[in-house]
Amino acid sequence: MAKQLIFNIFTLNSVSHIFHGMWRHPDSKALQHNDLDTWLELARLAERGCIDTIFIADLAGQQGVYRGSTDMLAERGINFPVSDPEMLLSAMIATTENLGFVYTRSMIQQPPFSFARAASTLDHLSKGRVGWNIVTSYLENAYLNVGHTELTDHDERYRRAQEYMEVVYKLWEGSWEDDAIIADREKGIFADPSKIHRIDHVGEHYSVQGPHLVEPSPQRTPVLFQAGASEAGRDFASRHAEGIFLMADSPADAAAFIDDVRARLVAAGRQPDDAKFIAGTSIIVGSTEEEAERKAAELDEYVDGESLLAQYSGVFGADLAALAPDMPLAELAQQTSAVRGILEMFIDRLPADSNPTVADLGKYFSSQYRIVGTPESIADTLQAWADAGVDGFNIIQMTTPGTYTEFIDHVVPVLQARGMMKREYAPGTLREKLFPGRAARLNDRHPTQGYRKTTMPV
Amino acid sequence: MAKQLIFNIFTLNSVSHIFHGMWRHPDSKALQHNDLDTWLELARLAERGCIDTIFIADLAGQQGVYRGSTDMLAERGINFPVSDPEMLLSAMIATTENLGFVYTRSMIQQPPFSFARAASTLDHLSKGRVGWNIVTSYLENAYLNVGHTELTDHDERYRRAQEYMEVVYKLWEGSWEDDAIIADREKGIFADPSKIHRIDHVGEHYSVQGPHLVEPSPQRTPVLFQAGASEAGRDFASRHAEGIFLMADSPADAAAFIDDVRARLVAAGRQPDDAKFIAGTSIIVGSTEEEAERKAAELDEYVDGESLLAQYSGVFGADLAALAPDMPLAELAQQTSAVRGILEMFIDRLPADSNPTVADLGKYFSSQYRIVGTPESIADTLQAWADAGVDGFNIIQMTTPGTYTEFIDHVVPVLQARGMMKREYAPGTLREKLFPGRAARLNDRHPTQGYRKTTMPV
Repeated sequence: MAKQLIFNIFTLNSVSHIFHGMWRHPDSKALQHNDLDTWLELARLAERGCIDTIFIADLAGQQGVYRGSTDMLAERGINFPVSDPEMLLSAMIATTENLGFVYTRSMIQQPPFSFARAASTLDHLSKGRVGWNIVTSYLENAYLNVGHTELTDHDERYRRAQEYMEVVYKLWEGSWEDDAIIADREKGIFADPSKIHRIDHVGEHYSVQGPHLVEPSPQRTPVLFQAGASEAGRDFASRHAEGIFLMADSPADAAAFIDDVRARLVAAGRQPDDAKFIAGTSIIVGSTEEEAERKAAELDEYVDGESLLAQYSGVFGADLAALAPDMPLAELAQQTSAVRGILEMFIDRLPADSNPTVADLGKYFSSQYRIVGTPESIADTLQAWADAGVDGFNIIQMTTPGTYTEFIDHVVPVLQARGMMKREYAPGTLREKLFPGRAARLNDRHPTQGYRKTTMPV
Repeated sequence: MAKQLIFNIFTLNSVSHIFHGMWRHPDSKALQHNDLDTWLELARLAERGCIDTIFIADLAGQQGVYRGSTDMLAERGINFPVSDPEMLLSAMIATTENLGFVYTRSMIQQPPFSFARAASTLDHLSKGRVGWNIVTSYLENAYLNVGHTELTDHDERYRRAQEYMEVVYKLWEGSWEDDAIIADREKGIFADPSKIHRIDHVGEHYSVQGPHLVEPSPQRTPVLFQAGASEAGRDFASRHAEGIFLMADSPADAAAFIDDVRARLVAAGRQPDDAKFIAGTSIIVGSTEEEAERKAAELDEYVDGESLLAQYSGVFGADLAALAPDMPLAELAQQTSAVRGILEMFIDRLPADSNPTVADLGKYFSSQYRIVGTPESIADTLQAWADAGVDGFNIIQMTTPGTYTEFIDHVVPVLQARGMMKREYAPGTLREKLFPGRAARLNDRHPTQGYRKTTMPV
């Protein structure tokens, strides 16, 4: 029997996400991203199609300088403006029953105490359907927006992230015991104070008294997602994440990454299947291969390649337009303070003996992450990725909601017929839906376990 | 013709709000505050009753020590646990068309950049129906939860608050010009970068680059509410607030406060009617006076007076149970680092020649803020408050939604018949609804005006 795969709608509360320029397409509703109806419609569509989650990316600042300024970001709507994803959630929760919601929150956006409280509230409101995509911002502007004077060093970011996780785990898992709430109207006793604990965290970066202001939600800790391509990122993901997002050029490429991270999971005391691996791809479907290719070619007329260079200038922390085309990428990797890991990943993928240069980046960017074909051939391709170890997909939009409508109307029935996708939602929380047979709360192999006993009473 | 008054549902995302102990009442749904249906039902009820806003209070930490510990807060559910109000909003926005939403956000919960972004997102999603109740936390635990080592001094809090306002005004009002967005699909131009500005704020407490990540929302700045009893609080409110919340013992008491703050409004270059004054009260309605009094007496059996002392121990930053009953309040006022202004207000209200003591606080707390009567006599009383200068009311719950259902079913029709309340919502944003004949955006007398021109391009 085929493995049932996870399918998420991957989006951004913005004019543009990944395939920049697509907002210009007449069918795109990206310009209406500040209209709540756009999101309610998307949530209902997703649930109709048995989609697992709406997975909302985010940026806490502008991408970087390209061609000497940030002008192009506004001019072409490159991940900018970008509204707050967290504010969308309760509306979509109210309009659905089973759909999950994974939202991105950077650790620099607010103190861990405030974030943990918001996430617990959402997990309550959704009856346990929330996931958190853990992000340590890599954009200098994001740091300058919240009082830092410069971008924090990459490895230092992960050390700080480790402490942030400790704090939220203490709040989510350790502050309230399971039987703290009594809610006895007759006796007038709401809770047993001896079972509610301050966390009294004092660390290098954070100092948090507690107790958590929200009683335990169905999942306590929301389902944890992360994307980490660098060494530090892979280590972090293998310790914490239950869903690991990756962008790969091929099933073989994905398999290499997955094998590496699964080994790290084991090294961290977890099981290889304690995390799901989710690959990003778009899908373009036609009733014949020719029709699909023709649709892809038509859509491509709207994709703006230079916007992608501008975006990656932010990712790499270097103005790609200002670099000499023959500058070796290895040299660029030495200079950047931002996402060195992603750059190293690019270098790994380009021909090893070619000493890849900046010019090769442009060539690389034009190989777009998407699957084009008939519903049957798309299912075949997805199966090839599944055979390589991928557990599911974040579906990137060409147009929204068009990409998702077509996927749901035409590809989902084929996947269901092949047993590659569920026909109805499993009961329970998002964690139980994503990990059939497991509990609503994280298992004992996860580091949250270490924070479940708190002895100091309030 | 009678003045049309503003009516808000005043609540907290918690087990208990103001009349502690009421969660024990069989009709109370306070125990279901983490269930989204509770809030959707409340929002629909409010809109059916032509209520202006749901006004959600908040606390960023636990109240203080009472009887030597914080145990009673959990045991009796005194403003604890308290979930995040901001997470409720988009669901209630989606289920209503005209209702406004005022939510409390303390400045210590997140950096101004992150808060401004969330609020702008909500103002977009609601098409301009959002207000912000500005709070500088007074609870020591709230500070200790976000990395501070102690409660910030009261006056210092207001100085920091002033800078926080400058930052959010720069983001909301100054970062994007009105005609920055072009959204020309043919030309592929989303925005004119010369009309989007970094704010480059560098101050004593905050350093924020910008630009704002969200394009201008219908109101730009959400409608600003504040409650400030102290000198510094009144000055702050008179400079910034468009809605000023007060708790008064009598119409005369309210009038004295309102006269004082209206004079401060004028001194700050604003008009006396640039702010609405909203008094807090509960309402208990019967078909006869006797029935209303009987209902009040029945409800009173659930009110827990000692919980109120515990709450005010947090407000005053002093364990009221540990103080000598004959300790003069003037002496207590010297000691407290928390809400000195509220304590001074208490002292003002107790008989001037009595040298009020801690024992008098208990007496004071038992005089509860509520109006008991028939729909007609309640309307008479509300009119007396209106004649004293009050513009509207935050209705405090005895039971929720019971207090609001009864008010809407029985009192609202009488108020409408007397012209004291609208029969249908005015069109436009919350600001236009609350200030008939005015614009969606703040007028030129408000300090936001000073931040509307930003010259440094991104």
